[in-house]
Formats: sequence, C-alpha cells, structure tokens
Amino acid sequence: MPAFEPQDPEFRARIVASFKRQTAMASLGITLERVEAGEVELAMPYNAAFTQQHGFIHAGIMATALDSACGYAGFTLMPAEAAVLTIEFKINLLAPAKGERFTFHGRVIKPGRTITVCEGQAFAHEGAVSKLVVTMSATLMTLIGREGVSS
Amino acid sequence: MPAFEPQDPEFRARIVASFKRQTAMASLGITLERVEAGEVELAMPYNAAFTQQHGFIHAGIMATALDSACGYAGFTLMPAEAAVLTIEFKINLLAPAKGERFTFHGRVIKPGRTITVCEGQAFAHEGAVSKLVVTMSATLMTLIGREGVSS
Amino acid sequence: MPAFEPQDPEFRARIVASFKRQTAMASLGITLERVEAGEVELAMPYNAAFTQQHGFIHAGIMATALDSACGYAGFTLMPAEAAVLTIEFKINLLAPAKGERFTFHGRVIKPGRTITVCEGQAFAHEGAVSKLVVTMSATLMTLIGREGVSS
Amino acid sequence: MPAFEPQDPEFRARIVASFKRQTAMASLGITLERVEAGEVELAMPYNAAFTQQHGFIHAGIMATALDSACGYAGFTLMPAEAAVLTIEFKINLLAPAKGERFTFHGRVIKPGRTITVCEGQAFAHEGAVSKLVVTMSATLMTLIGREGVSS
Repeated sequence: MPAFEPQDPEFRARIVASFKRQTAMASLGITLERVEAGEVELAMPYNAAFTQQHGFIHAGIMATALDSACGYAGFTLMPAEAAVLTIEFKINLLAPAKGERFTFHGRVIKPGRTITVCEGQAFAHEGAVSKLVVTMSATLMTLIGREGVSS
Repeated sequence: MPAFEPQDPEFRARIVASFKRQTAMASLGITLERVEAGEVELAMPYNAAFTQQHGFIHAGIMATALDSACGYAGFTLMPAEAAVLTIEFKINLLAPAKGERFTFHGRVIKPGRTITVCEGQAFAHEGAVSKLVVTMSATLMTLIGREGVSS
Repeated sequence: MPAFEPQDPEFRARIVASFKRQTAMASLGITLERVEAGEVELAMPYNAAFTQQHGFIHAGIMATALDSACGYAGFTLMPAEAAVLTIEFKINLLAPAKGERFTFHGRVIKPGRTITVCEGQAFAHEGAVSKLVVTMSATLMTLIGREGVSS
Repeated sequence: MPAFEPQDPEFRARIVASFKRQTAMASLGITLERVEAGEVELAMPYNAAFTQQHGFIHAGIMATALDSACGYAGFTLMPAEAAVLTIEFKINLLAPAKGERFTFHGRVIKPGRTITVCEGQAFAHEGAVSKLVVTMSATLMTLIGREGVSS
C-alpha cells in the first residue's frame, strides 16, 4: 500500500472530535484505537445486548463499526473543512461474529477529491485466537460547504 | 411480485420468537410491525443515542434494521427446522436518515433451497412526509441441522 | 415511482449518440430499445460466443448490459454538458442467464447533482416465458467539465 | 494470507479445461496466466471493440474478467466433481480502465463447503506503469451433483 499524505496535519484531532459526536459509538461500546493517514482501527467488546438470534453480534452492528472505521479512514485524508458521507457499502459475512472482543480496520484504497473508496476488515478475538469475520467495501463522498453536515 | 407459498404454516410464530432472541432489536428500539409470506416490516423511532456525527441515525444502525427485515422476510419461506444466516448485503444511502421515525421493509426477490435473495427499503418519516433513504440487497443462506445456530 | 423531470429536453438524442460510441454494445449485440426520463431498456439475443462454462451467458456480460442500462438511465436526467461515470455496482445472480433473448431495464432510484443511484433488472426470455435472472444496484457520478471524458 | 490445501490435486487441469469452455474469454481476448491454490490471474490486451463511450474498456468487461478470475480462484479449492456458480459480486471502479493491457487477480478470502468468498483486483498497465483500477468482492457457491451445470 502507498503511504498517504494528509491534507490536514491536524487530522487526528479532527477524527477524535467527530468520533465523539457519533453517539452510536459510545452506545455500542465501540472505541477509537488507532488513527493513521488513510487508516483507522476501532474495537468493541462482546455485548449480549447487541446480538442476533444465535447469540453472536448482529451483522448490522459489525457493519456499524466497520462503516465508522472506513469512514474515518477516508476522513483522515480530507481537507480540514470537509464533511464525510458514506454513499454505499457492502459487507461479506465470512463467519459468525463470535468472540470476546472485536477489532475493525478501515483503510483507504483510493482517495479522491470527491469520491474515496475504502476497505474494512473485522476480526473476532477469543483468547489468543483471531479470526477474520467480516469484510467491507465502502464508497465515501467528500462534502465541502454543505450546511447541516459539518464534520 | 408473485405470491409466495410458505413451507411452514406457523411461520409468523417462528419469526416472532426468533426476533425476540435478537437482543439488538430491543436495545435499538426496533419493533416487528408486520410479517407476511416473503415480507417483513420493522420500525424504529429516532433515538439520539444511535447517531453519526451529524445527528442522523448511523448508517450501520439503518443497516441493522434492514438486515433483520430482509433476513426475516427470507426466513418466512424457509422450513420449520431451518436457521437463516446472512451471507452478504449491500446498502445505498440515498439521503441522511433524518426523521422522527423509520420503517424498514424487507421482501424476498428470489427464494431458493439454499440461497435466498432479498431487497430492503428504509423510509424516514417526519410528520406526514415519508422519504426513501436506504436500499439494501441481501443474500441469505438456509441452514438445516447445524448445531449452535438453531433458528 | 415518481416521474422525473429531465434537465436536458434533448436527452434521448444524447443517449443514442453516446450509446453508439460504446463499441462494447455493438460487439456484444446489445441494442437500445427504449429511453425515457430516468429509464432505459436494452436487449441482447443469446450468443454462444459470450458464455461461461455451462453454456449460459457469462455473468459479466449480463453485468455489462445492466451497467449500460443503469448508466444511461441516470444519464437521461443529467445536464446536457455532463458526462456519466459508474462508481460501483453490485449484481445478484438469481438464476443462470439461460434463454433466447435477454432484456435489461435500468431506472433511477435517486437522482442527485453529483451522485445518482440506479437499479437494474435483467430478464431471460424463452418462447413466451420471461424470468428475472439478475438484479443490479449501481452508483453513478455526474462529471462536468472534465477533459477526456466528454459524454 | 494462509496457504490453501486443494482437495483435488488435479485442480490446474480442471481450471484450464473449464476456462476453455467459457467462450466469452476467447471472444474478449482474455487469457489464463496463472493458477495456484486459491489464486488465479487473467490478462487482456486493450481492445477498441469493447469500450464504453470515452474509449476506455467497459466496466462490465472488466467485471467479466474479474468474475472469471474470482470464480476460478474459488474453483481451485473445490472437489473434483463440483461445479462453481457466482451468486453475487460487487465492483468499485477506482479509475477508468485506460491502458495497453490489463491483468485480473482473483483470490480466495474464505473457502467453505457451500459458500466461498473471493476478492479481485484489476490493474491497467501502460508502459512500465501499473495502476489498480477495479476491485471486486464475490460470493461463489459450490454445486455438487446438479445436472446441466457440470464443471
């Protein structure tokens, strides 16, 4: 992967501030673990309150964390005054989200002035064992100067 | 759309019981509104605890409800002893999930012995105005006789 | 579906001219059957030169026709000076593309200044029987004033 | 990536034979370049007969090659008597397919008894410069003992 040159040297502070405004993250127990130019990692403990019918974390909750990981990965490379919106994403569920703890890795595949494409991977961790359980591809849009959706 | 003939005449009871086991639904305030052969409708009020950074419902939360709507739409047509798993889904975010209340409509496009394809639509409601805000296409798998993933 | 108001009253002529420049269409035997505001229909006869290993039309060829149907559906609603690019698409293959003739229907779900979302359906026809065999969801981008990608 | 253990030691011969039956490959000038357990590489020269309206290779043609690359990557790990079907795929178009020659890399992310998930990447080559232009995620199904779709 190429290294990316962020346009905004203060991108980490911008991601931290925006992440705090995503109330869904705190409500689901999702935390921001790492922010690099073009890459973001989130984590979530198992929580029996957010499962599907078999007791595994609901696919949509996994998608929520991956969408934020991908969205913020893209946001690291956007200008300081930009807002980021997800246009679409797709996930493949490789295995049930069964584990004690989950990590979510989003990275930019192709940054662009208007459109940025990211990929995400979610891992389930149980003791010393880690397993890739969900993959995502996501398309983001950079918005500049639209009221009501400031970053 | 063709009418579907359910294999299990008790499909409604089966969906209701499985939905109750999805703890994510109660935690997010998502309710089961309607169950027909090949079609399911869910609803969710706006909840400031599950938003993204602009105060709209997080795309992943919308995906969570749509995934359940699609999954249960498919599940209505499966045999009584089957379990349902989502293999993959894609969502397109047509507009921010801004509204007082949201409804989620999942329907079967193509049922199959092993693979079922569904489509979902999420609407945002504000006063008398309703707006299509998210679309989903989802692929489900029918599982028979796999331990640990009973319906 | 709402009726769409095209920005360019000459949209049909614009689609016809652009379609002729898509050499892939003539090479695959795909024809433009119908153009309405927000909707396009294409057709293709069965051709043994474009199959997969079981003798059915290759999924990618079906995707090629659907991508053009969706892209031109979106293009009908764009300004006269715009170019259209597909950002991403997803297809679900509901059944093998087995038939004498195929039709491809693209329609706009959500037009936008920059981003347009379309859905496509491909049908296989054999005698009097028609069958939905592929669905597509596609995201398009409107480009204005980019050299080298004029419409 | 983990190394995969093929179930059929003769997998290369099986892929070569099936590829020859995909008439679409020869018609589009797509060749089989490399076959490993869980990985397949295809190539295609630029061909003015398969472009979109701006003279670049049509997105659907790129998808056709990537679908075959992913499908055969999955097929390498299937039993000798199996047939492979694509259930769905999604592509992201990162840049126009502009180049003298294109290569298509498919690899298995998660093999399974029934469902296999693959990822694909298409590169455009122009002189000494190579560029990632399309990514794919695809879901395959292993079919055993279905008449009419032998491998």
